[in-house]
Amino acid sequence: MPISGFPEVLPAQRFAELAVLDRLRTTFELHGFAPLETPAVESLDQLTRKGEIEKEVYVLRRLHADAGDDGNVELGLHFDLTVPFARFVLENAGRLEFPFRRYQIQKVWRGERPQQGRYREFTQADIDVIARDTLPFHHDVEVARVMAEALSTLDFLPPLRLQVNNRKLIQGFYTGLGAPDVAAVMREIDKLDKVPAEVVHRALIGTAGLTSEQADQCLALAQVSSADTSFVPAVEALGVKHELLAEGLAELAAVIEGCAGITGVTVEADLRIARGLDYYTGTVFETRMQGYESLGSVCSGGRYDSLASDGKVTYPGVGISLGVTRLLMPLFQRGELSTSRSVPSAVLVALPNEDDRAACDAIAQQLRARGIATEVAATPQKFGKQIRYAERRGIPFVWFPGDTHEVKDIRSGDQAVADPAVWTPPTEDLHPQVVFTEDIP
Amino acid sequence: MPISGFPEVLPAQRFAELAVLDRLRTTFELHGFAPLETPAVESLDQLTRKGEIEKEVYVLRRLHADAGDDGNVELGLHFDLTVPFARFVLENAGRLEFPFRRYQIQKVWRGERPQQGRYREFTQADIDVIARDTLPFHHDVEVARVMAEALSTLDFLPPLRLQVNNRKLIQGFYTGLGAPDVAAVMREIDKLDKVPAEVVHRALIGTAGLTSEQADQCLALAQVSSADTSFVPAVEALGVKHELLAEGLAELAAVIEGCAGITGVTVEADLRIARGLDYYTGTVFETRMQGYESLGSVCSGGRYDSLASDGKVTYPGVGISLGVTRLLMPLFQRGELSTSRSVPSAVLVALPNEDDRAACDAIAQQLRARGIATEVAATPQKFGKQIRYAERRGIPFVWFPGDTHEVKDIRSGDQAVADPAVWTPPTEDLHPQVVFTEDIP
Repeated sequence: MPISGFPEVLPAQRFAELAVLDRLRTTFELHGFAPLETPAVESLDQLTRKGEIEKEVYVLRRLHADAGDDGNVELGLHFDLTVPFARFVLENAGRLEFPFRRYQIQKVWRGERPQQGRYREFTQADIDVIARDTLPFHHDVEVARVMAEALSTLDFLPPLRLQVNNRKLIQGFYTGLGAPDVAAVMREIDKLDKVPAEVVHRALIGTAGLTSEQADQCLALAQVSSADTSFVPAVEALGVKHELLAEGLAELAAVIEGCAGITGVTVEADLRIARGLDYYTGTVFETRMQGYESLGSVCSGGRYDSLASDGKVTYPGVGISLGVTRLLMPLFQRGELSTSRSVPSAVLVALPNEDDRAACDAIAQQLRARGIATEVAATPQKFGKQIRYAERRGIPFVWFPGDTHEVKDIRSGDQAVADPAVWTPPTEDLHPQVVFTEDIP
Repeated sequence: MPISGFPEVLPAQRFAELAVLDRLRTTFELHGFAPLETPAVESLDQLTRKGEIEKEVYVLRRLHADAGDDGNVELGLHFDLTVPFARFVLENAGRLEFPFRRYQIQKVWRGERPQQGRYREFTQADIDVIARDTLPFHHDVEVARVMAEALSTLDFLPPLRLQVNNRKLIQGFYTGLGAPDVAAVMREIDKLDKVPAEVVHRALIGTAGLTSEQADQCLALAQVSSADTSFVPAVEALGVKHELLAEGLAELAAVIEGCAGITGVTVEADLRIARGLDYYTGTVFETRMQGYESLGSVCSGGRYDSLASDGKVTYPGVGISLGVTRLLMPLFQRGELSTSRSVPSAVLVALPNEDDRAACDAIAQQLRARGIATEVAATPQKFGKQIRYAERRGIPFVWFPGDTHEVKDIRSGDQAVADPAVWTPPTEDLHPQVVFTEDIP
């Protein structure tokens, strides 16, 4: 039995996952992000530095450990790609050129109780830009744009909505409003996803110490969203003034403007996004998938003033992390995302007799030399059986060797004379296609 | 500090590793092998079924495990990709079409004491063909050919030598010779890599119970090798006759003939290869890399009569596994394999002023739209500084925006007028190139 929380990726699903990973990588590299792969393990010291995530770590031990042979370094599996990246930057700071752009696509592990949409092993795709001492703001725009472009290439997914906000904006707004405890306001506003507005309103008064009018204003701010910069006058119309608010508004407007022209994914300012429990200091990102809102955010991140620090030097960064498994597994489970076939083969070369195998192999090699994935039938069964074998695997074409070769499209039944040196299937049949089928029962 | 045995793959190295993985995947898929990804963990029951590898398993525990919350299933990291594949086949036998071809490229973990060329975390690339009840012999030829073709695409590696033998051949030979303990002979012959022939000769007499003449014959057999089928008469000339020997000779000849015409990698019959401690029953594979013979075999496998069995049904298979990390890390460490640059960017767009950023971004987007990885300078420093920044990263071209754009090849110093809508770098500069430099000091 598969172990709960550890998804197994079957071939048809793996084609879809590989298509996602390939497209992400292509986009990240087009923008100059370099690939990095850190080990799956870190020392427990590194992993528990932040404290709160401590209980989710999987610790390793050798089944028959010899006394003292690991030099007393306790090891655990990494639970995200940010902790290893921060460790990497500190260790390699002298050799890196800053700003340093890296992408990292790896599995991470969390020893959580498994529940809907939570995995103990899952793949993340992270991009970050990091600098020494200072990191210009335009990298916030860059990171938003690169991830938005990457998401826009995943055209077989349900519509995605990249929601952007800015911590300066909301902190400035709450401060300008006279809130006595800005962090408390943020925590309550962060609950709007799960709790009705009137409950949040009461908590803003009871817990965060606002007046009813101030609470109204906070909820009004949280309702502002726009896929263009029209959120700016909408916020200004609320009448709150603060230097930090103005700075945050300008930054958020720059991110939204910087993502203009990207089609296939919506990038919008959403002033409800707070990511209250994180260490972000400016831009923040969340992403929701239409029809899968209950998953929460599938792609999140933001600006942090100190991704890493060795005590003397501080390394600010901005980054965003896509939960690839979190995005895909629910689609697989609902049967909404699948692949046109479970094998790479576009062609099955039929085998008339075992003696013909060398000739059939030679035909297959001619096709493969031109990039056409091909297999040769395992045994010389009747052709009807060989065709049904191809059908069960979704292989679209069966090749019949002979003095004149013929190739059959087994979906239409069309059969035509063909030359193995030049015949090519239609582009859409060359590789398994990822298919989104909303109406699969 | 990096943790001993857990290699970290820096960007320049990761480009090389990704090139290897991409080429393997392309070849495997061209031959109809489907991708599979199993979880990193298996139940400890599964992992310890074979017994002998037990002590190398890393067991997981949650740092703050709640009593009983894992349902008492102890989990460990997989130490190869064969055990998970066997478990997968048994679990999914009802849904799979046989013969089932799969490739699997994943990390595996072994809790070994680290030593030269041994890793605790490493990437393997496995292909296997598995069937129910019987698997025709021609799949042995197929697996040999597919891996040989895959290896031949890794043209930046030192010369590789895929060595093939057949357990039937050597068992039949020893039996036909009258050896009282065939397995003992195989174990001694298997030591020829590490021990002088005369020591093996003594052991064949003392431990395996052969006469001196029989021992001579065994060593004579072990010395036979050929990259064509000339090994057949060479073995026959030794005068031993046995049905199993004849069958093994025919099978081995078929594998060598099936790999004819592959260039860039040597495929040869080598009658010394025994893989004595494994469960192989026919064809066996090992692979050696020139100049790195001390690594031992970097790509091994063979035919097994029972990859998996549920007690009623048996699933025979044939497979081969490439140790990607084992192959690449020593080359990285000796500095013999590297990449032409450590960033994907082929072009740096110079930034005259911060006000020009939008225009520079637009140029970069035009280049990226045509597949040219491009970054824009982080700050509007003097052009000399921007060029040196590109130089340090190995970015070959710097783009100077203006009314007429110009692009400079910073290696030659050549600078020419260029149009961002049509300019393309030479193909070899488009992506980082993997470079084998034997003469790096």
